[in-house]
Amino acid sequence: MVLRPEPLTSLAFAPYGDVIEAGEQASTSINEGHTEKFADLAKIEMEGGRPTVHIFRAEPASLPVLVRSLERHRLGSQAFVPLHGRPFPVVVAAERSPRAVRVFLSNGHQGVNLKPGTWHHYLLALGEVSEFLVIDRGSDEPDCEEWVLDEPLSIQF
Amino acid sequence: MVLRPEPLTSLAFAPYGDVIEAGEQASTSINEGHTEKFADLAKIEMEGGRPTVHIFRAEPASLPVLVRSLERHRLGSQAFVPLHGRPFPVVVAAERSPRAVRVFLSNGHQGVNLKPGTWHHYLLALGEVSEFLVIDRGSDEPDCEEWVLDEPLSIQF
Repeated sequence: MVLRPEPLTSLAFAPYGDVIEAGEQASTSINEGHTEKFADLAKIEMEGGRPTVHIFRAEPASLPVLVRSLERHRLGSQAFVPLHGRPFPVVVAAERSPRAVRVFLSNGHQGVNLKPGTWHHYLLALGEVSEFLVIDRGSDEPDCEEWVLDEPLSIQF
Repeated sequence: MVLRPEPLTSLAFAPYGDVIEAGEQASTSINEGHTEKFADLAKIEMEGGRPTVHIFRAEPASLPVLVRSLERHRLGSQAFVPLHGRPFPVVVAAERSPRAVRVFLSNGHQGVNLKPGTWHHYLLALGEVSEFLVIDRGSDEPDCEEWVLDEPLSIQF
């Protein structure tokens, strides 16, 4: 089965979480007019934990990109913000069914914040080693459930 | 009075907050070995509030860069992570004295997380319009104190 990337828009991505970008929405002017603030772009959730900040340095995925498994975190959101400006795919599913799996393509200036419970592939980078800022729930209590697909899905760019 | 930028290192910046970078510290291998995780790079604080995520789009500062005022937030940390890869200055002071003001120069791949109470100049960008991811404390309760210097300090790059 083949997955074709869709453009990443707030509207299309709403069932899975937030798109973090300085986009179409209204901004406010701060810092004596020197800065535009695009406010409150992600709903950070961290039931029973604390917000943690990491950098993930991802190797580029081998082509073709195969989706063999997804994972989800039920207790916290997880945000991925590209620090490199290159497009990358975001693989998500609202339920545990191969038919529910979708791929969105970030333009490289869009991050995402996955809602708690959203099935997703781990971070995928294209072309070059790529760094991302990650904001998620820190806790000693593990919160990762894995779903291994019966057959891999192939992303066709 | 003239301020000269110092290199931004975790050690030198420790009195003011964290440096957010994939630097020298140990990383862990995750995602089937495809990703290096540089974990827990910022202590996010948000007394009585919630963590909020913004994008700030900053106009480049006029040269010479003059520091006329600083501000501080006592109840929450504030993180600035460059999304553009260009160097930018971070102006901070541990106390309300012109002699205490220091400037650190991020290499463009280093963000900072200011501790609650750290005096700082608002975000400064150099050369081009620059976007930053910002993580701070969201609340309806205002938390910004301003200090206007008697005489401006000039940053000499």
